Amino acid sequence: MNNKLISPITKAFAFMVLFISLSACKQEPAKDTESGTETVEVSNSDPLPSWNEGANKEAIINYVKDVTTDGSADFIPVADRIATFDNDGTLWSEQPAYFQLFFAMDRIKALSADHPDWKNKQPYKAVLENDMNALMQQGEKGLMEIVMVSHSGVTTDEFDTIVKDWIATAKHPTKNVPYTDMVFKPMLELVKYLQANDFKVFIVSGGGIGFMRAWAEGVYGIPKDQIVGSSNKTEFDYNNGNPVIRILPQLEFMDDKQGKPVAINKFIGRKPVFAAGNSDGDLQMLQYTASNKYKNFELYVHHTDSIREWSYDRKSHIGTFDKGLDEANQKGWTVVNMKDDWKTVYK
Amino acid sequence: MNNKLISPITKAFAFMVLFISLSACKQEPAKDTESGTETVEVSNSDPLPSWNEGANKEAIINYVKDVTTDGSADFIPVADRIATFDNDGTLWSEQPAYFQLFFAMDRIKALSADHPDWKNKQPYKAVLENDMNALMQQGEKGLMEIVMVSHSGVTTDEFDTIVKDWIATAKHPTKNVPYTDMVFKPMLELVKYLQANDFKVFIVSGGGIGFMRAWAEGVYGIPKDQIVGSSNKTEFDYNNGNPVIRILPQLEFMDDKQGKPVAINKFIGRKPVFAAGNSDGDLQMLQYTASNKYKNFELYVHHTDSIREWSYDRKSHIGTFDKGLDEANQKGWTVVNMKDDWKTVYK
Repeated sequence: MNNKLISPITKAFAFMVLFISLSACKQEPAKDTESGTETVEVSNSDPLPSWNEGANKEAIINYVKDVTTDGSADFIPVADRIATFDNDGTLWSEQPAYFQLFFAMDRIKALSADHPDWKNKQPYKAVLENDMNALMQQGEKGLMEIVMVSHSGVTTDEFDTIVKDWIATAKHPTKNVPYTDMVFKPMLELVKYLQANDFKVFIVSGGGIGFMRAWAEGVYGIPKDQIVGSSNKTEFDYNNGNPVIRILPQLEFMDDKQGKPVAINKFIGRKPVFAAGNSDGDLQMLQYTASNKYKNFELYVHHTDSIREWSYDRKSHIGTFDKGLDEANQKGWTVVNMKDDWKTVYK
Repeated sequence: MNNKLISPITKAFAFMVLFISLSACKQEPAKDTESGTETVEVSNSDPLPSWNEGANKEAIINYVKDVTTDGSADFIPVADRIATFDNDGTLWSEQPAYFQLFFAMDRIKALSADHPDWKNKQPYKAVLENDMNALMQQGEKGLMEIVMVSHSGVTTDEFDTIVKDWIATAKHPTKNVPYTDMVFKPMLELVKYLQANDFKVFIVSGGGIGFMRAWAEGVYGIPKDQIVGSSNKTEFDYNNGNPVIRILPQLEFMDDKQGKPVAINKFIGRKPVFAAGNSDGDLQMLQYTASNKYKNFELYVHHTDSIREWSYDRKSHIGTFDKGLDEANQKGWTVVNMKDDWKTVYK
């Protein structure tokens, strides 16, 4: 690793990998009593059937009707109907750690066959032995090495295949279901409801852009070019007439906190009118959205359901929801109470 | 200027600003005998009415029919119908220099009221006196200073307004018409023909992303989030509750040559099946497109019309078309002969 890279990378990734052992140990695994395989359909009578009746559901529907009705004082032209959604904790679960970290660890295990020395070499040894405490003892530098080695050294096409294979077979460590079964059905309905009303929906996530694009288009119905995330540097290689894009082991951009409005400007070029998140990492995106001249909607998912999902907020190291919760309460943003607002949690 | 920035910036921008004096002096101003205000419409009988009949027009139409006809062996699913277009020299003219450089110079003039010292200070003095030779004598550092000062120090919203005001009023130095009158009508028809056949059309240009987005959405009918270009670094500023994105005087990414496939991967996440350019700066984009597993189409606009537009290729410092022309001939890519293939040049 280039030492010059460590400082910005560690700062950026600290939120992702630090204290995973704490989170992993303290979180209660939960059972979803409602999971199923139903497809999400938007009906005219009730566009959000997985949401319980209440002020939050009503606020969403009233907003969408208000800004899309011709002649309404709050009407928003179609081109300006931009909606941005965080992914981890907003569209799918994120406990006991970001699912992408489990991918990174599984990838290290898969690569270990070609690296026999990893058995006795940290930080790899800790990953191969599933020893989270030992992994944490490697510090940020060790964790970054795991993330970089697992996410680079291949072409973008190869990485896409690797992630697709993983997501099709890997299972959540405590729920023992495919990760894509842990997508929130009420949020999928919301995405589709907005799309049906001519909103252009984007994902703007701290997760890796290539990691998400490998599966999220199909799962969420959001095109790859509308999925924005953190990225490594890449380079074009003509490769003797078989051009490829190679992923380099250097962080290019961290799509979190202040990075989210920066990425929204770069990738979308318009301020959203609707934004949804679940943590302090989404706060700047919601602040930016709240400054739109058009009537806008800020939504926070509050994880309050220790039975069907997880319950955590201010003190959680994954998905910390502290400053965001204060600002949402202060400004009257919509805070979805998962336990009360959602009839069903998982799709 | 930070000296550390100079080296990568100068390399990247060299193509844009060097030798402008040569280009400006040697190019023949030309008169468009066909310009008008007709809107572009795609008719079923002839989707490309501004194109003369011939092999190139036929090749485009045959390709689109082939890959969009259900049951065709070459059928391409809608999600994979990605088309990428260069802008300068491909969708509008680029002589005697990139139009964005004229914007930069006009912006310096507008700013000069607040900088009385510029009258006697290079490189500003040269710009204020329209002295291109003196400007060139300032070297790359001086030229970069002009570009950076004219493209930063404001918020993205302010920059958008500045460009919109400029494009609405500025006129081309020799043709004396608004720059947006110098959009190629046949290419607009091609964009709309592809869109009508469910291609998602993107601009992938060396031009500035914020500069293009200010006007190109309306002129080309391509949404802002489908316009990709070079960019400066930006930062989010909460600004006491009125959040803004500020443009910094540092180049972030140069969307040219190898940068084009890199940007395509980052912004689009899919390899194009159709790509159009006009210079060596587009070669890697066309190579990347040519490696698509789906049937693909590579198009080069060859500037051969010294009467209605300009005639230049291998030895031009703006829009150099040398390696690209060789490779197009070798690989059988479509090289549009502007003089013969286009019934009308400007919209």
